[in-house]
Amino acid sequence: MSSSEDTETPVPPESMLPESMLPASVLPDSVREAVRFNADGLVPVITQDAETSEVLMLAWMNAEALGITLATAQGVYFSRSRQELWRKGATSGNVQQVVSLALDCDGDTVLMRVQQSGPACHTGTTTCFTGREITDA
Amino acid sequence: MSSSEDTETPVPPESMLPESMLPASVLPDSVREAVRFNADGLVPVITQDAETSEVLMLAWMNAEALGITLATAQGVYFSRSRQELWRKGATSGNVQQVVSLALDCDGDTVLMRVQQSGPACHTGTTTCFTGREITDA
Repeated sequence: MSSSEDTETPVPPESMLPESMLPASVLPDSVREAVRFNADGLVPVITQDAETSEVLMLAWMNAEALGITLATAQGVYFSRSRQELWRKGATSGNVQQVVSLALDCDGDTVLMRVQQSGPACHTGTTTCFTGREITDA
Repeated sequence: MSSSEDTETPVPPESMLPESMLPASVLPDSVREAVRFNADGLVPVITQDAETSEVLMLAWMNAEALGITLATAQGVYFSRSRQELWRKGATSGNVQQVVSLALDCDGDTVLMRVQQSGPACHTGTTTCFTGREITDA
């Protein structure tokens, strides 16, 4: 499950989307062919603050979420628990303006650099990893 | 599949490990209980350069890989394609000295900050994402 999805509002059905989002549901073929989605049709996305370089969170996208993210330049993910799209910040206002997207060398992970409004974590911390260090003590 | 695993040598059987690695195969209970491994017993690990803050790669760990990583402070992962442990840099020399590990807010992702020797990607690029930008053009 993604770190922050549970407090977010899902993206409305396509008929309710603003016009600018409609083309987004079609992922360009060149991108679709480059991404190696897993058996569930998902790819993990590492979201990084473009300014501070902090790693903010990890969440998942399907082809539609990636298409909408590319077309709208806002972070939109797929909730594995709810099986629906969600736009980061839809309710909290802590939206993500996309700065760049890159695929890794074998095409099965996305790195998304964003301009993050407010804290990235639904718990209120700057990132989903803030203050959660693992030790073997 | 992890980005860089294919050119790496697997970790030898436990009997061949240096003594310092032996305790690592036991993950402390407190950590085991905090991590939400997936149905395959794996957790995704985002590896970040502690000095430059660049995101280097995403790979996976099972409980044993996480235990060895904690105990040895070297990045050790689990290869999903080969179903075995592999130590980053075992053949290339591009090892990862662990600086810190953190779990995200719902416990299903690890962020590992490392001191990376040499390029992180088996293709020779600094990170697995270098020069692999996605565009919708």
